[in-house]
Amino acid sequence: MPERTISSDDVLEMERLVRATLINSVSGLKSANLIGTADRSGRANLALFNSVVHIGANPPFLGMIFRPLTVKRDTYDNIKATGVYTLNHVHAEIRDRAHRTSAKFPPEVSEFEACGLTPETTPTLQAPYVAESRVKIGLAYEEEHTVRANGTILLIGRVLEIRLPEEILSEDGYVDLAAAGSLALTGLEGYHEVGPPLRLPYAKAPA
Amino acid sequence: MPERTISSDDVLEMERLVRATLINSVSGLKSANLIGTADRSGRANLALFNSVVHIGANPPFLGMIFRPLTVKRDTYDNIKATGVYTLNHVHAEIRDRAHRTSAKFPPEVSEFEACGLTPETTPTLQAPYVAESRVKIGLAYEEEHTVRANGTILLIGRVLEIRLPEEILSEDGYVDLAAAGSLALTGLEGYHEVGPPLRLPYAKAPA
Repeated sequence: MPERTISSDDVLEMERLVRATLINSVSGLKSANLIGTADRSGRANLALFNSVVHIGANPPFLGMIFRPLTVKRDTYDNIKATGVYTLNHVHAEIRDRAHRTSAKFPPEVSEFEACGLTPETTPTLQAPYVAESRVKIGLAYEEEHTVRANGTILLIGRVLEIRLPEEILSEDGYVDLAAAGSLALTGLEGYHEVGPPLRLPYAKAPA
Repeated sequence: MPERTISSDDVLEMERLVRATLINSVSGLKSANLIGTADRSGRANLALFNSVVHIGANPPFLGMIFRPLTVKRDTYDNIKATGVYTLNHVHAEIRDRAHRTSAKFPPEVSEFEACGLTPETTPTLQAPYVAESRVKIGLAYEEEHTVRANGTILLIGRVLEIRLPEEILSEDGYVDLAAAGSLALTGLEGYHEVGPPLRLPYAKAPA
């Protein structure tokens, strides 16, 4: 295949949306997650994120990236106000509804209702899960870091509980997300189904 | 499907490897990347990472997560010493070789040679790319943040150049990673091929 090299000058000269699409997609496959929160009065909010990273297992921490707070960010504000949030994997049957949550709804409208998804809570935390999702994680705010270069925020949460279908969890702790139908995301809008995992053994150097 | 709830106490009581496997896989599909670096004397290093995140497009920044520096981290040390690194997507034909780089090789052994991959440089930066990879990004160190909760590091790089097959790049900037064969990763060892992207239109709320 003929190769193309795009220089940093080329990137900077691109039209804004083309540049965002390029950098968001070329940076790799991501996970598609709905983040559920509530404000102090209990009003539910739901937003699509593609930026969840593993931060640690003991104790378990996950990170996610927020764009700079130059406009109102309901998810961020709700997490700071209540201290908790839920992460809900997107699968094919809720893909279109999940994607619709990224539209700009008026503040009085809940994305759950507007997009046809069902809020669900557990005794562990007062943030709504997505009932239709299959793999769900409840988290508590832990800390955040602001990137000096552009104001982006890394927000870190501690895992409070994990909810998943019994049958996708192996005895060794491995979760088969392909069996759960979890989708991968490229850019802000490209949804991919994934094939079954090929699990390679722990790599060892020859003695 | 019957659901199982795993509490944070359950997680903390798990055997160490089971817990790591659980949290690494349940946190979602990730991208499989080889990070290429060189030390000050030009000795090449290659390491597998699953933690690349989009930080910004204008200018373009990517982030990646390093485990705490409690043991020697060649990739981190090399980036700090030379200021540059490469990110190389893993596809099915180099999957096994890429996975093998995660073994602990003696310091005098280059993972390129030990695993059968070819280092390749461009005039833009003095860090080795993986010749066999199809989607490659050259980056320069920008800044880092240390997570207080566990010492994990978010390292951010500025994109210097992007190299990819001409035919997977659309006019609107979208890169089709399925066409490039880029693999998704769950946990530290589960490799997934991905289906073609379904690109959904930009979501708009009803007027």
